[in-house]
Amino acid sequence: MSILYKNINYLDLENEKIIEGADIFIEGNLIKKIGNNLQIKASEVIDGNFLLMTPGFVNGHTHLGMSYFRNYADDLKLMDWLENEIWPIENKLTADDIYWSSLLSICENIKSGVTNFCDMYYEMDKVCDATIISGIRGTLTRGLTDNDGKGKEKLKSVRELYNNYHNKANGRIKVVPAPHAIYTCSENFLREISDLSKDLDGIINIHLSETKGEVENSLKEHGMTPISYVNSLGLLDNHVIAAHCVHITDEEISLVKDKKFYPIYNPTSNLKLASGFTPVDKLLKNNIIMGIGTDGDSSNNSQNLLQDMHIGAIVNKAREMDEEAVKAIEILKMATINGQKALGISKAGLIKEDYLADLTIFNLKSSNFTPKNNLINALVYSATAEDVRDVLCDGKFVMRNRELVNLDEERIKFEVNRHFEELVKR
Amino acid sequence: MSILYKNINYLDLENEKIIEGADIFIEGNLIKKIGNNLQIKASEVIDGNFLLMTPGFVNGHTHLGMSYFRNYADDLKLMDWLENEIWPIENKLTADDIYWSSLLSICENIKSGVTNFCDMYYEMDKVCDATIISGIRGTLTRGLTDNDGKGKEKLKSVRELYNNYHNKANGRIKVVPAPHAIYTCSENFLREISDLSKDLDGIINIHLSETKGEVENSLKEHGMTPISYVNSLGLLDNHVIAAHCVHITDEEISLVKDKKFYPIYNPTSNLKLASGFTPVDKLLKNNIIMGIGTDGDSSNNSQNLLQDMHIGAIVNKAREMDEEAVKAIEILKMATINGQKALGISKAGLIKEDYLADLTIFNLKSSNFTPKNNLINALVYSATAEDVRDVLCDGKFVMRNRELVNLDEERIKFEVNRHFEELVKR
Repeated sequence: MSILYKNINYLDLENEKIIEGADIFIEGNLIKKIGNNLQIKASEVIDGNFLLMTPGFVNGHTHLGMSYFRNYADDLKLMDWLENEIWPIENKLTADDIYWSSLLSICENIKSGVTNFCDMYYEMDKVCDATIISGIRGTLTRGLTDNDGKGKEKLKSVRELYNNYHNKANGRIKVVPAPHAIYTCSENFLREISDLSKDLDGIINIHLSETKGEVENSLKEHGMTPISYVNSLGLLDNHVIAAHCVHITDEEISLVKDKKFYPIYNPTSNLKLASGFTPVDKLLKNNIIMGIGTDGDSSNNSQNLLQDMHIGAIVNKAREMDEEAVKAIEILKMATINGQKALGISKAGLIKEDYLADLTIFNLKSSNFTPKNNLINALVYSATAEDVRDVLCDGKFVMRNRELVNLDEERIKFEVNRHFEELVKR
Repeated sequence: MSILYKNINYLDLENEKIIEGADIFIEGNLIKKIGNNLQIKASEVIDGNFLLMTPGFVNGHTHLGMSYFRNYADDLKLMDWLENEIWPIENKLTADDIYWSSLLSICENIKSGVTNFCDMYYEMDKVCDATIISGIRGTLTRGLTDNDGKGKEKLKSVRELYNNYHNKANGRIKVVPAPHAIYTCSENFLREISDLSKDLDGIINIHLSETKGEVENSLKEHGMTPISYVNSLGLLDNHVIAAHCVHITDEEISLVKDKKFYPIYNPTSNLKLASGFTPVDKLLKNNIIMGIGTDGDSSNNSQNLLQDMHIGAIVNKAREMDEEAVKAIEILKMATINGQKALGISKAGLIKEDYLADLTIFNLKSSNFTPKNNLINALVYSATAEDVRDVLCDGKFVMRNRELVNLDEERIKFEVNRHFEELVKR
């Protein structure tokens, strides 16, 4: 299959500008040619006037299976929320429950322009299946804890998941081990996961330095802040997808800046759970490559990455009392090229020849783009999911005219409601 | 005309809960009867299953005419932005330009569930005309400055505007004088506006304590912080719609808490312009009645009040490092009953018999409401403008199935683009 976009506007991240009226030729799963007046035969030719193409967005940290807990318990103290509300019901989830909620979350991700995500949850074979069907890309990471004494068993299951799914679906699926957090994994277990990772692709995903409490406990128990602690265990010799890093210290920044350490910023979740204000401006000024994510529905309470991009951009200006802090272009990089780098995906996240054809296409006729001023700013400060018209992943449409191509959204909502009714009765 | 909603879910703000399966009868411009199994003949009967009715939202502070400056200049220092980017082009706006941009902004307000707003701009007769046509309610306030030596002339024009438009369109239009800010009005002019207000309805609208710079200059020039300064001039003897109040001091809170002083919170604008974090939690704890607004498109960069409601709710939890700060229900009150109080509109902002039938109706079948958990939280943390299905103002539909009833959105976007092209050439 091939597609030729004629006269389309696109986001050129390397030059930090919008290119107007280009022709873009997509063949197989790649962007093959970008130019003007391209004379190439394609299976489909699309008029790109009034369209704006960006690289597909990357939701760098989420828990797809948590749709059931959206608006289930809010405005509560974190530990009260987790221990009394979320964990008791979460423990009753079945594999089938997680399959349907993951599909619902994937719908919402696609509808906000997302083509790749990093998920941390369990029953990950079901999440892999859901991702394969959806047509988008995913890094699937089993959240690992050993405070239930089942650490060994879980490590074995990650290896199985890797063998069964890694690089499946034309490479769209990646399987990565994921210690849940330092407060749910023993020191020995963290070392074992690190060893497993080195045996696989050398990537791990972990929640790090999310709350003040985590930092205080780490200092008390290990005499070190969380990131220094995992470094002392050798974990940071891996490529680390580090969710949150709200309370990363200057010392830790120095420690990670030359490592393959990729913080994922989760603005909505961090604000709503009162975790704090991640020092995004400082991290960027230290040339640390960051991604951005929604986190799960229990804290976000949606999977609309465009909202997080917007909130992430504006809140850091007030945090720094500097209108020039964390500009729109920086947020767009976090959501595209840097998000892909954070997940270890190469040749993705740019609109560039020979890059993956993972693409998000906005409707410039929408009110939010009227009048047409700086489109880079419009993407971050004005655009909403409603303005995303089409999404392609791996060279194929996954949403077209806001209709999902591979997923039956009405059926999925029906199943989520049905499964939730059963869940609360258990 | 009359409408009977059967089996609808609605937000009961007085009891802070959702009532399920009620019948609501609307006649003329009022909610006439709320009950179960109402046997009343109505011109139209609507099945309310899968619908959620809230009072229409109130955008407590905006500049409708500024659509042209959306994404026109962002990520710049405030004074650089105003003096070098916004003011030079704003000075070239014609009455006709403002008419069309106001209409575009009203479209966006309605599409995010807004039925009433407080606008501060100029060429206000045109904005009154736009509001009348749209079918929604508005407090129209001419932004007054006298640093151009034309203060007297402007006061006269406010009186004319009041005579021509106040209480027009079945009372939907209110005209209120509005000193722009303490740094653009002389002391004498502020006193004159206050006198004018007392001569009219006793309401004024003003930007107050928006930035640190404003506070510092006020201390330097008047030896008082901004709110104390306007109090010293007698301004606070009026009913005051006070936009921003980001830097309101404890002393000022004590000063205003027993007055008719209504701060309007503008979260997006305050964050994006790096003005700071408004102490919403503290203001609420002092029983100060607050509204919420979008501010203009040049700083927001949209007119989507639901976004501000969401951002306002989450950012204050991080500001206070308290997950329980500024709960969803508080934000909903700011956007409805308290917003109406702030604009001096009585018997509005509640779903209650004999209250104005200004109503926003959400589609509960949307993904954001799946599964159906706490709907109060869902409204603030999950819902987006896309989920607003219908909007009624003064008992009449102004949007139905997301189609605007009185406004031709395509024509309006066309005219805004055309006027903007001419504007930049001037």
